[in-house]
Amino acid sequence: MATSTSTGLSTAPARGMRDFLPQEAALRDWAISRLVSVYEKFGFNRIETPAVENIANLKQSEGGENLSLIFEILKRGDKLEKVLANKNDSTKELLSELSDLGLRFDLTVPLVRFFAQNQAQLPYPFKSIQIGSVWRAESPQAGRYRQFTQCDIDTFGVKSEIAEMDLIQATSEALLSLGFDQFTVRINDRRVLTALASHCGFRESQFNSLFVLIDKLDKIGTDGVKKELLGQEFNQSSVDKLMPFLDMAAKAGSNQDLSILSTINCPPNVVAALENVIQSISAVADNRYSIVFDLSLVRGMGYYTGQIFEIVCAGHNHSIAGGGRYDNMVGKFTGRDVPACGLSIGFERMITILTERNIKPSSTGEKIALIFDQDRDPLPQVFQAATKLRQLGKHVSLLPKKKDMRKQIDALVQEGFSGYASFYADKDLPEIKAIK
Amino acid sequence: MATSTSTGLSTAPARGMRDFLPQEAALRDWAISRLVSVYEKFGFNRIETPAVENIANLKQSEGGENLSLIFEILKRGDKLEKVLANKNDSTKELLSELSDLGLRFDLTVPLVRFFAQNQAQLPYPFKSIQIGSVWRAESPQAGRYRQFTQCDIDTFGVKSEIAEMDLIQATSEALLSLGFDQFTVRINDRRVLTALASHCGFRESQFNSLFVLIDKLDKIGTDGVKKELLGQEFNQSSVDKLMPFLDMAAKAGSNQDLSILSTINCPPNVVAALENVIQSISAVADNRYSIVFDLSLVRGMGYYTGQIFEIVCAGHNHSIAGGGRYDNMVGKFTGRDVPACGLSIGFERMITILTERNIKPSSTGEKIALIFDQDRDPLPQVFQAATKLRQLGKHVSLLPKKKDMRKQIDALVQEGFSGYASFYADKDLPEIKAIK
Repeated sequence: MATSTSTGLSTAPARGMRDFLPQEAALRDWAISRLVSVYEKFGFNRIETPAVENIANLKQSEGGENLSLIFEILKRGDKLEKVLANKNDSTKELLSELSDLGLRFDLTVPLVRFFAQNQAQLPYPFKSIQIGSVWRAESPQAGRYRQFTQCDIDTFGVKSEIAEMDLIQATSEALLSLGFDQFTVRINDRRVLTALASHCGFRESQFNSLFVLIDKLDKIGTDGVKKELLGQEFNQSSVDKLMPFLDMAAKAGSNQDLSILSTINCPPNVVAALENVIQSISAVADNRYSIVFDLSLVRGMGYYTGQIFEIVCAGHNHSIAGGGRYDNMVGKFTGRDVPACGLSIGFERMITILTERNIKPSSTGEKIALIFDQDRDPLPQVFQAATKLRQLGKHVSLLPKKKDMRKQIDALVQEGFSGYASFYADKDLPEIKAIK
Repeated sequence: MATSTSTGLSTAPARGMRDFLPQEAALRDWAISRLVSVYEKFGFNRIETPAVENIANLKQSEGGENLSLIFEILKRGDKLEKVLANKNDSTKELLSELSDLGLRFDLTVPLVRFFAQNQAQLPYPFKSIQIGSVWRAESPQAGRYRQFTQCDIDTFGVKSEIAEMDLIQATSEALLSLGFDQFTVRINDRRVLTALASHCGFRESQFNSLFVLIDKLDKIGTDGVKKELLGQEFNQSSVDKLMPFLDMAAKAGSNQDLSILSTINCPPNVVAALENVIQSISAVADNRYSIVFDLSLVRGMGYYTGQIFEIVCAGHNHSIAGGGRYDNMVGKFTGRDVPACGLSIGFERMITILTERNIKPSSTGEKIALIFDQDRDPLPQVFQAATKLRQLGKHVSLLPKKKDMRKQIDALVQEGFSGYASFYADKDLPEIKAIK
């Protein structure tokens, strides 16, 4: 593959970025249109926010480790020259003044800004679909990209757990529509984790680092978590009290009983809401997928306030979707809290699985190649012939004849053509021949 | 509209950028899906390139004045610190080293890179659809945005004018499918302009600045152009020789005769190709739109090598689409020329006109609101009722009851709902009532 050119320019995409060839783009477009059409059945509507946000909005968000991965955009013109003129500033000071904009690293920060800005013109509750690119300056590695697509649905303004049910059902139906099945929805609640931590005697200031470790249970097991907990100087008696719960979570795997929550002083409304969601989703899942309570589910983002969930496919390590309730985030922008809840499909991971399974988008029409001699045939007549074939409902591509026409026709199969026609000046309508 | 918040953050989009609310996003999505479905009938396939390109590829392209409007992305980590450590460098030197990436300012530069990079895996000829955002750091003003959508089709590998016919027909049919009609395709050829300039005795080194002035004919008239020509110290006798042609172009308006080309020593194959395109397109246009030769059509980009065209709608000053042949551009990347030709719809301008004409996307299904009491109704049963309504093919949105339910129902009309149902625990299936 030629990546360097006569001009010294690289023809490769920028590091960590990707070109999508027609077949890849077709699969992505098809998946998006399926997802959107299911989401619309649940009353969600697509919105769009710009790729670029003011840098302060990005940097002051609760984006966790993503804050260090922002692609920052250089100031321009006078403003930039003014910054550079201050050569007495330390490098650190200079660095903080060079950019005024940045590329969004997720769709949640822009969504909250969007809602705060446009609230008066939006329906309330507001149910949004967002599908778009986000950018993170990660060290590129297998399967990790610097530009990738996220696919989120969010509900603003519904305080009860019917919002969670709605999001989980819509996302599950969307996945089913793409051929996924027998996946598992794991569900927990941040308030369950808080109750558990309090019950074991951890201090509130320790909760976040504790949850980060519990989140590793999947990967390093109970022994691993215990070792790290003691390494971080958590109170030994609290750790001892916690371990049986983690043992239970690890052993039970994906089949944990909500009754355990009665032993840790978990608020009854939290338990009832989990019960409601699990029962309601189980009923509509109808054995096509399942939902299970998982005490060890944490989800990384610090902004979650209530139920959290993720969806895992059998045979795949990483979750294919994840989300939860974040009732305080709009308030941090506007001073007034608004109930909010979202579920995001890992679009790139989903596309990877669809590609592995060789799932192809359904064709949009019968594709015909009209082959002609660019140097000898009367072009206006060739053009007219193509128009006539299109009037018969065919998708017609005009293709100049190549030297080896047999080879040319064979190659058309790969491109999804079902037939071809050769142009003859004396025929009114070219005859279509099937390929293979 | 609240644009400043309790945290001091602005909730407005970054300067010159836009949020799209559900109705706006729906119109844009609908227009895109219409355009794509027409383009696919002509054998074009969608591809995607990243929003971010290596800065050298952008800066060394023939992007004209767009080169000064690039949003540049700051280097990161060690690389950035190294640049800033060189405080002895001049501001100018520093400026040139701060960025390694930039946001694309059009879709043509990335397309040419894409083709050069992926040629071996692409069909040849290659016919692409590209719809995506581009970014330009323009001074924001009415109707000019810093992020906007372009919508291009391009053909690589077809040397004859059947490529032009194909692009013009596909774009015209796409516009017709959105409700546009009685638009005019203006066509010219860069080689016509060159022949005219030579005929009048201008030097080749003057051609580009001459063409820039001819391009202004629309706005400043023949007298204006003459004044500017003489102001720029072009040879008086050449200007005198040129003026009758410009007078003719200005007077004839949109109805110029190709026969004039015989008087300026224009190559016969150039004239024949223009004739072919005009006749072929006129035939398929069938009075729904028209195509006219326009000697004064220039098109700004310096990279055009053959036919150029633009589409104008009656009652609108700016063209709604434009393009042409650029046979040398791939060669500048790879050292080997490939025939290339493209036509781009001005997507934002098109959306503005659709909005002015109050054109709305066709609805995707019957939208029903299921209204319930979030505090009193049994949520699992409410959820089940929504599922049942969806099984009947309705699009159902779960909406908590508001204090003034009459007002709530009235507002649903605006959001495109055609009916609503109130949840009653004793009814198996909620009864749908039409709104209005």
